[in-house]
Amino acid sequence: MESTTTSDIEIMLSSQSKINEVDFENLTFGTVFTDHMLVCDFKNGEWQKPVIQPYQPFTLDPSTKVFHYGQAIFEGMKAYKDEQGDVWMFRANENFNRFNKSAIRLAMPEVPEEVFMGGLRKLLHIEKDWVRYGMGRSLYIRPYMIATGEGVIAQPSSEYKFVIILSPAKSYYNQEVKVVIANHYSRAANGGIGAAKAAGNYAGQFYPTKLAVEKGFQQIIWTDDATHTKLEEAGTMNVFFRINNTLITAPTSERILDGVTRKSLIDLAKREGIDVEVRSLLVDELLNAAKNGTLKEIFGAGTAAVINPIVGFAYEDLYFDLPKIENSMAMELKDKLNKIQYKLAEDTFGWTEKIE
Amino acid sequence: MESTTTSDIEIMLSSQSKINEVDFENLTFGTVFTDHMLVCDFKNGEWQKPVIQPYQPFTLDPSTKVFHYGQAIFEGMKAYKDEQGDVWMFRANENFNRFNKSAIRLAMPEVPEEVFMGGLRKLLHIEKDWVRYGMGRSLYIRPYMIATGEGVIAQPSSEYKFVIILSPAKSYYNQEVKVVIANHYSRAANGGIGAAKAAGNYAGQFYPTKLAVEKGFQQIIWTDDATHTKLEEAGTMNVFFRINNTLITAPTSERILDGVTRKSLIDLAKREGIDVEVRSLLVDELLNAAKNGTLKEIFGAGTAAVINPIVGFAYEDLYFDLPKIENSMAMELKDKLNKIQYKLAEDTFGWTEKIE
Ligand SMILES: Cc1ncc(COP(=O)(O)O)c(C=O)c1O
Ligand SMILES: Cc1ncc(COP(=O)(O)O)c(C=O)c1O
Repeated sequence: MESTTTSDIEIMLSSQSKINEVDFENLTFGTVFTDHMLVCDFKNGEWQKPVIQPYQPFTLDPSTKVFHYGQAIFEGMKAYKDEQGDVWMFRANENFNRFNKSAIRLAMPEVPEEVFMGGLRKLLHIEKDWVRYGMGRSLYIRPYMIATGEGVIAQPSSEYKFVIILSPAKSYYNQEVKVVIANHYSRAANGGIGAAKAAGNYAGQFYPTKLAVEKGFQQIIWTDDATHTKLEEAGTMNVFFRINNTLITAPTSERILDGVTRKSLIDLAKREGIDVEVRSLLVDELLNAAKNGTLKEIFGAGTAAVINPIVGFAYEDLYFDLPKIENSMAMELKDKLNKIQYKLAEDTFGWTEKIE
Repeated sequence: MESTTTSDIEIMLSSQSKINEVDFENLTFGTVFTDHMLVCDFKNGEWQKPVIQPYQPFTLDPSTKVFHYGQAIFEGMKAYKDEQGDVWMFRANENFNRFNKSAIRLAMPEVPEEVFMGGLRKLLHIEKDWVRYGMGRSLYIRPYMIATGEGVIAQPSSEYKFVIILSPAKSYYNQEVKVVIANHYSRAANGGIGAAKAAGNYAGQFYPTKLAVEKGFQQIIWTDDATHTKLEEAGTMNVFFRINNTLITAPTSERILDGVTRKSLIDLAKREGIDVEVRSLLVDELLNAAKNGTLKEIFGAGTAAVINPIVGFAYEDLYFDLPKIENSMAMELKDKLNKIQYKLAEDTFGWTEKIE
């Protein structure tokens, strides 16, 4: 292990890379990690020196607060390699800002830009070889923060660990996605933590999703918990509905994650002259559109899969197949966004940043 | 370290006890732990052999699911010592049942009774010396389960760790408690996980509670998230309102934890001939009762403090002090419950179980 200090990040390189043991053709999402990770501890009221070190386990006391009170937030974004072999981050700054919004909502300290963005650039620079070129390929970036203070009393921790790990990825979903529209269970409360990328939001969805899976569906489209009439988002994706030639997606709110893919697609669609309405689509409107044939597409939008076309949905006892259409807006937008991400089209929005 | 196997629990005793280093007169709640803990792992679809071992840290991969998706639940109950030196659990079976309800809602495996209750009895037997006699003293029991599977994909884990740790306790709150009635933030959604003792429910309350603390309050009384008109519960306590001589407490629901203290108090109050109404008290009713002098008491009910009298509350721009009264029902019920717990009164309900 070689130890150097670059600017304000301590770097300890692993003596041997695992990269040759990795089968990049057969990757299961989120299971293989690169050689290094960034770790930065918060204690005594301040962030300590960030360290890039070999990927390795943590040692934590059984009373560590993250185990008991769920103070844990994360982010997810990707880096891509272009034809020339350069590595690019896609809108990572948006994830940085969202991370700190999540931190505030969970009463955790905000992570300084030098640590999050500076650390990420440095880490990606070191792990460049782990980003492979090719459509669908990427390096998934997982920054997260957990409460590491000790003691079983339900109060915010005074110590935290901020971590970035990296995982090489192919595309996320390969199966056809059928969804259930929620009519009883919910993801988020008014005045709750739905807009934060908080660990606890995900565990709460597993049981209702399991019930959906048992019935042959893969995901749930959540509705507002008070009335179950407004269509909101899926487990890890925002959702777009195409009725005739208009795309409709829910406004962000306290209950809905402000997805980077969602907002990128809205901008792209507008640039392409596609009509976009940011408003709550009602379940009744969806059912009517499905019945009268004006519902053309539904798709999820999120970092993992970029765009995930939905082929059918169930609501209570009803089931609807989506029509198979030519000129899918989902496919057109996915292609446009991918081309920006892989530097195959001009990035008119300034969404990409090269790793030097 | 001495290793033996009793029935189906492996026991590894620590070679030296820390008990003499502990100042039992000056305990901070939830910070000191006994010499041993129970650990039982779930993998390959089944629970492995439970082990009682010296209290020690865990080693966990950075991609461990509890850090990312919040699959974590817990319980909290107490053991008490009587005048004769015998140790008694209070309604631990209720906590066992509630734990498994939480497990189901979080898509985690249920813990077998032999592991949870059998393991707890064995562990308490070993740690008897850590339970001290005296009003307010107890051994706080913290069973919990975390997802220990690896991989950053938002799906239920296939591996879990069930743990019981024990912490000697004096009483929980010693300060006067003033509360804020929630009018924007919320604890739980309809169809959410509010009725589960899930880690994520607690982290979500820290930020709004911090805002309340900054204004000189200690806790929040949550209202229903859809209308903010129904009074529900506090962060770690159910809540009772006394209007004239009637006690009112919210019914349990998907949004409210079914507290063991709450249900014990309802039974005790009924036995004592006190009028109890289990219904949602409305914020307006509370304000009217405070204004016209019929509001006599508000108190929180939970394992940690048993009963916590509330001395004042704020709602939007209004603040009300609770009257100082003689013949407080809170104090009467607390005394009655404590006497059962410490075996100073007959346990007509069969709530206590002796540790052999
Ligand atoms: C709940 C939820 N909604 C939506 C998204 C999509 O957000 P983004 O496009 O930033 O990945 C995510 C994250 O992937 C999510 O977890
Ligand atoms: C949210 C919440 N409500 C109420 C309670 C009170 O429950 P119990 O009386 O079982 O301790 C607790 C736990 O202590 C709790 O966490």
